Order: sequence, then structure tokens, then C-alpha cells
Amino acid sequence: MPYVNIRITKENATSDQKALLIKGVTNLLQEVLGKNPQTTVVVIDEVETENWGIGGETVTERRKRGE
Amino acid sequence: MPYVNIRITKENATSDQKALLIKGVTNLLQEVLGKNPQTTVVVIDEVETENWGIGGETVTERRKRGE
Amino acid sequence: MPYVNIRITKENATSDQKALLIKGVTNLLQEVLGKNPQTTVVVIDEVETENWGIGGETVTERRKRGE
Amino acid sequence: MPYVNIRITKENATSDQKALLIKGVTNLLQEVLGKNPQTTVVVIDEVETENWGIGGETVTERRKRGE
Amino acid sequence: MPYVNIRITKENATSDQKALLIKGVTNLLQEVLGKNPQTTVVVIDEVETENWGIGGETVTERRKRGE
Amino acid sequence: MPYVNIRITKENATSDQKALLIKGVTNLLQEVLGKNPQTTVVVIDEVETENWGIGGETVTERRKRGE
Repeated sequence: MPYVNIRITKENATSDQKALLIKGVTNLLQEVLGKNPQTTVVVIDEVETENWGIGGETVTERRKRGE
Repeated sequence: MPYVNIRITKENATSDQKALLIKGVTNLLQEVLGKNPQTTVVVIDEVETENWGIGGETVTERRKRGE
Repeated sequence: MPYVNIRITKENATSDQKALLIKGVTNLLQEVLGKNPQTTVVVIDEVETENWGIGGETVTERRKRGE
Repeated sequence: MPYVNIRITKENATSDQKALLIKGVTNLLQEVLGKNPQTTVVVIDEVETENWGIGGETVTERRKRGE
Repeated sequence: MPYVNIRITKENATSDQKALLIKGVTNLLQEVLGKNPQTTVVVIDEVETENWGIGGETVTERRKRGE
Repeated sequence: MPYVNIRITKENATSDQKALLIKGVTNLLQEVLGKNPQTTVVVIDEVETENWGIGGETVTERRKRGE
């Protein structure tokens, strides 16, 4: 029954990588807390780099500097 | 003043259906808790099926099997 | 499979009222979008009035003025 | 370490305005609570007007009436 | 830089189990997407069972029936 | 109409500090995007340090080391 929301910048995640995240988080909740995987919901949000800030600036700015 | 976030897979919701969800949730909060509809905010997020997981797999996979 | 998050101020919602919200939102998603109620998740967050702001001030301040 | 999520309707925010929001919120958390700006995360979600409801109707409807 | 929000019912998660979830999710994001673990944020919300609904009823009701 | 969610660790924020955050964010959205402050909602979530992870460990662990 858990609900997990993974938020990452929209850069280069493939469908396969996203499927691995969903499978991995679902397994983790079963292993650690015994949660039934059938009702575990995982939602991935991919956010444009100009909408994501850290350290007071956008990720777009960081990427321009090679960070 | 309530804030409601409805998250669904991006499949086939029309503008009219989304308007009905917004109206319905706003009415429900007024009827059950007496909340002023004028300040009730409802935000609908439509999420790509490959970004939504349940049972450890993406909804994209489920749809391929006809589920 | 929808996920709904209802956020309200923590004031006076009873267990029965919260159960009605959960039932009502789940029914609404079935009626409007045909979503399976068995996998609809609704989570209610009750937030202290001093942690909820509208119009630039806390709800605690508003309640003191009788609003 | 704070996480801030700003949700607005997708209408006309420019990259510069979004950068100002990120900088402003990060500064505010440093000034008011002494939070380290280097680890403050700010995520802006821009939501289609037909997916945002207030007063029981969508912002799309409001905009049509010039509100 | 990812932000992960894990929402579970407030039932019996220990501090050690929560630390394992945080470590596990952080590792997963590094393995699958190469995300820097130093800036991955994981927030766990534990929600009262009467505030969590699935299948149109609260988890409190489900637990009474032994589910 | 914006909705802002500020999530911080539950450590020592006072009512006055939280009121300043609410006022500051509301003003910022008015200055940068011209948003009407009367309908801007700001919700602050204070999260227990053992439920907040960064760098793969809980803030509780970090605080023990004086970080």
C-alpha cells in the first residue's frame, strides 16, 4: 500500500531504467517492511532542469558549467 | 482552503472529465467538512504510463498484457 | 490506481468524516474515469494551522480574527 | 536540506523568473531558519490550466471570463 | 539531487528500518541512474491508518478485519 | 493561486519563523510572477529527523556527529 514518489531531473532516464527504479523500490519495501508489492505504487516525476534548483540556481545553469 | 492533488495515469481523460473531478472533489469537501469551495484548490497530475509503477512493474507493461 | 492526497488544516475532522472523504473521492474517480476503486489510494494530511498559510499569513492568525 | 515545491499554472513564467523564484526561496530559508543554501532543493511544477481547479472550476474556465 | 518521498501507514516501522529504506533508495538511484548519493534526499511520511484509504475505506477498517 | 510546500526537518522552527516563511514566499510570488497573494497557499511540513535522509543516512545520524 505504500506510495513512493521519485523526482529527478528530466535528462536521460530510459524506460528500462525507470522500470528498474520501480522494481527496486518495490522490492526494498517488501524486504525492509514486509509491504505487499502488489499494492505498492511508485510514481516517477521527471522535471525540466530549468525548473529544478539547488544551491540557489537552476540545474540548467549548473550543467552549463559542466557540473 | 483545502489542497487536493489527484494523480492519474495519462491515458484518456478529457477536459470535461477533469472539470467533473474538480467540481466533485470541491463539493465533497464542502458537504463533508464545510470547506469553502471558493478557496479549495484541486490539481490533477497526469503521469506517463511508463513513469507509473504498481506491483513492481510499469503500467505500460500492464497495458501490453491487456490489464 | 489513482493516488489522491487531500491536505486540510488540522482542526476538527472526525474519523467518520475522513472515511466519508475517502469513500467519496474513490467513488468519484470510478464514476468519472472508470478507475477501479480497489486500487485507488487516498491519503489525508492534517496540517497544524500555524503551518498553513494563505494570503501571506497563517490560518492561526485568521482564526484569531474569527475568519 | 529543505525541499520546496512550488506549483503554479503553466502560463507565462520565463526561465529568468523561475531562476528568481529558486534564488528567492533559497535565500529566504537561509535568512529565516539559517538553512544552508547549498543543500536547499526547489522544484517548480507548471500545471496546465485545465488541470488546475479553484472554486470548483478549472483555471481555463476562469481565464475565458477574463479572471 | 533526486528527491524521494516514501509514504507508508504509521504502524510499526523502527528507526533501523527507516534508515535501511533511506540507504536502499539512495543506493538504487546511484546504481540505476548514476545519481550522486551525497545530494539524494529521501523523506518518509508515516500516515495514521485512519487517514489512509484504499478500496474506498480506511486502513483502520481493514486492520479490524485482520487484513 | 500558487501552492507552495516547504518541507524542513522538525528541529527548532518557531511560530514567528514559520509566519515569516509564509509571508516571504507569498511576497516573492507576487513580485516575480504577479500572483495574487490572497489566493497563494503555503504549507510547511516539519519532518522528524529520523524520517529525513540525505547522503544515504538519516539527519538523526548526522546530528549525532555534530553536522
